[in-house]
Amino acid sequence: MSTPKQTAQKVTLRHHPDGPVRPSDFAVEEQVIPAVGEGEFLVRAIYISVDPMLRLFIDPAPLGGGMPPMPPGTTIPGPAVGEVVESRNPDYAVGDLVEGRFGWQHFAVSNGLGVQRVNPRLGPLENALGIGGLPGFTAYVGLHTAGGVKPGQTFLVSGAAGAVGSAAGALIAARGGRAVGIAGGADKCRYLTEEIGYDVAVDRFAPDFLDQLAKALPDGANVYFDNVGGPLLAAIAPFLARGSLVLVCGLMSQYQGDEAATVDNLPEVLRAVMFKGVRIQGFTQLGQDALRPAFEEELAELLATGRMKVAVHVEEGIERLPYALAGLFEKSVPGKVVVRVGSLPQGKE
Amino acid sequence: MSTPKQTAQKVTLRHHPDGPVRPSDFAVEEQVIPAVGEGEFLVRAIYISVDPMLRLFIDPAPLGGGMPPMPPGTTIPGPAVGEVVESRNPDYAVGDLVEGRFGWQHFAVSNGLGVQRVNPRLGPLENALGIGGLPGFTAYVGLHTAGGVKPGQTFLVSGAAGAVGSAAGALIAARGGRAVGIAGGADKCRYLTEEIGYDVAVDRFAPDFLDQLAKALPDGANVYFDNVGGPLLAAIAPFLARGSLVLVCGLMSQYQGDEAATVDNLPEVLRAVMFKGVRIQGFTQLGQDALRPAFEEELAELLATGRMKVAVHVEEGIERLPYALAGLFEKSVPGKVVVRVGSLPQGKE
Repeated sequence: MSTPKQTAQKVTLRHHPDGPVRPSDFAVEEQVIPAVGEGEFLVRAIYISVDPMLRLFIDPAPLGGGMPPMPPGTTIPGPAVGEVVESRNPDYAVGDLVEGRFGWQHFAVSNGLGVQRVNPRLGPLENALGIGGLPGFTAYVGLHTAGGVKPGQTFLVSGAAGAVGSAAGALIAARGGRAVGIAGGADKCRYLTEEIGYDVAVDRFAPDFLDQLAKALPDGANVYFDNVGGPLLAAIAPFLARGSLVLVCGLMSQYQGDEAATVDNLPEVLRAVMFKGVRIQGFTQLGQDALRPAFEEELAELLATGRMKVAVHVEEGIERLPYALAGLFEKSVPGKVVVRVGSLPQGKE
Repeated sequence: MSTPKQTAQKVTLRHHPDGPVRPSDFAVEEQVIPAVGEGEFLVRAIYISVDPMLRLFIDPAPLGGGMPPMPPGTTIPGPAVGEVVESRNPDYAVGDLVEGRFGWQHFAVSNGLGVQRVNPRLGPLENALGIGGLPGFTAYVGLHTAGGVKPGQTFLVSGAAGAVGSAAGALIAARGGRAVGIAGGADKCRYLTEEIGYDVAVDRFAPDFLDQLAKALPDGANVYFDNVGGPLLAAIAPFLARGSLVLVCGLMSQYQGDEAATVDNLPEVLRAVMFKGVRIQGFTQLGQDALRPAFEEELAELLATGRMKVAVHVEEGIERLPYALAGLFEKSVPGKVVVRVGSLPQGKE
């Protein structure tokens, strides 16, 4: 046990964000390490995930009031990866590396529910929160929902430089599909084509964004992975091919509240549904565990051959978590964002 | 041949409607009866259909510019039912009753493409343009697309008093499903529950529309047949059950141009897709001919037992067609609207 327990900390919700999330919405508090009961084990966190969707759960009216608000003082939930440091569960031994919903804290007790063992073939430990974790598996299940990559299909991905969008682009490219990515800014666009394998990157901040899109999609998009939501779908509707599928994977642009409306974008989208046979659906990873072995196999192969190069941006120190979350919505970096909150296991430094 | 050919007329497009369609957008002209070539036959129109979607095709920018505008002077297209009065096609004999895209004119030449023989078991001749025609078959294919009626499901239908909505409600009710219909005004709501078989009718002009909807849908709607489009879907999104299906059958509220926006309704709908697993899709009757025999069988049975009572509103005289079309968007009547333009065949008066 390399980290002395007495210095443990956690990040809690100070108050619900009013509009854009700010670091001052959070508090860093001392953590009292919980006792380990029969059947449980204690995890020392090493990397903690920073996920845009978290903004939604700390909203004063989560899911538009569909969920009760999180009480102030609650430890922020979310995935983390760490090392088992104490165990009263026969399935988990001290030294095991695990990923689970351990929250924004140095230590967490678990009974193993929802916990995944880190697969050493999936690259560095932090990958267990990125391409080997929820974002990567989301992209994989999405691609599965879309029926995989069929010859001649063109995929369009928004938020393409984000954790899910990066993984989606890399999987599509590796399977020989044509992938067009939408991202904000020249740096991210370069990352898409030079690192991830997107065939074309379209800069949505460019004044000629729609012209670029038209040029990139001469026959329209057959599958659109939407990670952004909001009005962008209406702008994209003219570029959706007949019979295409819109897979709603994320609503990044809506998590902080909707933009002030200048136009109703719903009619344009309904026209695409009615007159071009466009289908719109979401999907969930829940109940898709049967896909995990094939997912990990494909990913391990892509990593081994150097064809999976999703960026991971690492910040240091548990107190950086609130800044990293706010940063996702400001000038975000390409790839997956994680915060390192503990030392790597011995032999992995 | 009971109608002298020399009095034949047709309705043409005078100019594209600027906003709401007006009778002055059309012209009634003398029709020169075309000669019947080898393999063709001549149809004398008896009933001509009045369809809301026609508004879209005479728009200056049909389908948002996706189709070239119809040239002024063109005969208005659309389904009609009539009698074969001359034939050089061995499959069609003088006296046969047929339905097809004969347009707004007293006489039409056809080679049989897209022509259906009128099934005498489907009630009065005008039914071939209503429950036995495109609107009825649209409702049937929609219900088929939704997987039929499963126990415990609740169906919600907008534009429920229209031709498609009436047929959908009657089919759902006959199969034992729970149907909630949305229509505008107390008269139509009465028609829904007293004539069609809807379990509940909700008046969308009522000040407590959303409260009525909430009361009618305690467990949410499992399938929503949308005949209206526009902002209504966003208002309905909170009442869609988890995993529900939105079937876009029509966009009546959008055919004359979109309402002036006060709010962007797309984000609300995307939230339903992402967080409630709502799917949104359209469907088409094209390629669904294999369903027709079962459809006609079910319909004939419902008509014979008096369980299918969709209203047909008949106006008289070809010059009424433009007024009937404009009327669909103003104070519309329940059920299917047709115009009688010729005498019934002998023995059917």
